[in-house]
Amino acid sequence: MTGSNEGPVEPGPSAFSSMSRSPFTVTTLGTGAALPARGRFPSAQLVNIHEKLLLIDCGEGTQERLRSLGVNFQRIAQVFISHLHGDHYLGLMGLISSMHLLGRQSELHVYGPQDLKAIIDLQLRASGTWLRYPLHFHATEPVSGAVVYDDEHVSVSLLALRHRIPCTGFVVREKPGLRRLRHECLDRIPKFKRTAVKQGEDLVFPDGTLIPNAELTLDPLPTRSYAYCSDTAYEPALLPFIEGVDLLYHEATFTTALAARAKETQHSTAAQAAQLALEAGVGRLLLGHFSSRYKSAELLLREAIPIFPNTELSVEGGVFKVVGKE
Amino acid sequence: MTGSNEGPVEPGPSAFSSMSRSPFTVTTLGTGAALPARGRFPSAQLVNIHEKLLLIDCGEGTQERLRSLGVNFQRIAQVFISHLHGDHYLGLMGLISSMHLLGRQSELHVYGPQDLKAIIDLQLRASGTWLRYPLHFHATEPVSGAVVYDDEHVSVSLLALRHRIPCTGFVVREKPGLRRLRHECLDRIPKFKRTAVKQGEDLVFPDGTLIPNAELTLDPLPTRSYAYCSDTAYEPALLPFIEGVDLLYHEATFTTALAARAKETQHSTAAQAAQLALEAGVGRLLLGHFSSRYKSAELLLREAIPIFPNTELSVEGGVFKVVGKE
Repeated sequence: MTGSNEGPVEPGPSAFSSMSRSPFTVTTLGTGAALPARGRFPSAQLVNIHEKLLLIDCGEGTQERLRSLGVNFQRIAQVFISHLHGDHYLGLMGLISSMHLLGRQSELHVYGPQDLKAIIDLQLRASGTWLRYPLHFHATEPVSGAVVYDDEHVSVSLLALRHRIPCTGFVVREKPGLRRLRHECLDRIPKFKRTAVKQGEDLVFPDGTLIPNAELTLDPLPTRSYAYCSDTAYEPALLPFIEGVDLLYHEATFTTALAARAKETQHSTAAQAAQLALEAGVGRLLLGHFSSRYKSAELLLREAIPIFPNTELSVEGGVFKVVGKE
Repeated sequence: MTGSNEGPVEPGPSAFSSMSRSPFTVTTLGTGAALPARGRFPSAQLVNIHEKLLLIDCGEGTQERLRSLGVNFQRIAQVFISHLHGDHYLGLMGLISSMHLLGRQSELHVYGPQDLKAIIDLQLRASGTWLRYPLHFHATEPVSGAVVYDDEHVSVSLLALRHRIPCTGFVVREKPGLRRLRHECLDRIPKFKRTAVKQGEDLVFPDGTLIPNAELTLDPLPTRSYAYCSDTAYEPALLPFIEGVDLLYHEATFTTALAARAKETQHSTAAQAAQLALEAGVGRLLLGHFSSRYKSAELLLREAIPIFPNTELSVEGGVFKVVGKE
């Protein structure tokens, strides 16, 4: 059930080229909570799935972090904003503006709470900006399981988090790939038939001979999945929607000593994040959104590990692979 | 007429303690134009006048820059925003939020275009934030000479800049200090009379002897002044309002080769900034708002110096003294 714990991978091509599968990585661009401090930036994550880049949350300065990591942010076509606390979206206007100034023409899709549209529109109007590219806004409601994005390789659905204002998490799921040709059968399959066989067809020769697909192929690789729970109290209602995901990012703002404060502010302790990961049977847990009161996040890790051993801390600019079950 | 060219001063107490007068410095927190790049941040300046801190413009990430320079931003009580292009104000919401989270209770006054109030209010409402401190908004209109802030030591007035959207510059003027006691007269002035003499009174002894104030004192030190012209085309209508200021910050987005582009976008070339400084007879010219197309701003400096020799480039985090005429 658990994926291997590989720790953060240095950003750059090497993180991708070493993978035999299409990439599925999460780059944590900010690990801090509402108050940026101690070298921690506010929340933002870049998900690379099959070389498609999704941005999840966009705290102040996210464009700067992307730039410093060498990411061409014009490749981002989907931005998902969990909620309208500033540490999760105040970098969006700057990013939208820089995309414009750099000559973007391709569509940008922004998914977030309805009020975000008014915030964007008001600021574009006040600055007299007419974007050169189409900006499509998609209002989200906190309804777990609602699919907001879907393409050939990936779907993104929502999680109804429990926070002081409406707040949605996101589940990024890889779609099943094609069946895999058995290595020992390669000689028997004409090249022009390979795509059809990968798609599940039997192989029929001109003389009528038939080789059933099952003899030629293996099942597709198990799909991989990633769940992002930005700001939330411990919320067992999420369990059916995050069950068995390969990587769960869950906020861990406080230690157990501050459980009352966590409850009051509708945040989680590291132990609560670990408890949810355990109950959901996820592969790996990634903690983040650390309160600025903690000089080091190691204390949070130490409280999570006894409950869910396969836990890691997000780090600024760290790249985490979403490792599948095979 | 020209102040001495002392170059950037390292931030920190040493920059102040070496001064015989109350401090009057400008820290340039960002030197870039609309597109942040090449290690340049968007516009923001911290003015220290008599240990009072004024923030002028507040591009994305300004709170981070203040933090990295060790500035306690809770000491800032006045923020002046020139206009609503994102590179001049997108850091304001994050700063307002951090001030709140850090327990601020003292008033914050924000001066800027009317739409800025709606932008702040909408984002506070969307985030469900009730600030713990009073936030007073003062709408500005681009009318040169209009005084928007005035206290015992300083006044701040507006400049009607010429840009694509309403845009105001700011002139920060020190108020005249007290008359200075002549060193050789100190023995003749009873201690309890010194304040009165500094305020201009003659000295009258119980026996009726009178010493005229002019024999006891020197004129106050000349007042110092700083003008900030954020985004503007060359605008000679500013001259009466910036004449003789000790330090003029003027944008210099382009070189002369791109004068047409400057005109189109209502920005200035470095030569135009220098020309205005020359015509206004300012002490020193500080250039900034460099287009990201210039790897180094030296080219801009080289075009300004032949027109106005006492010109400098702003640098990230550099502290520039406003040097008076004495």
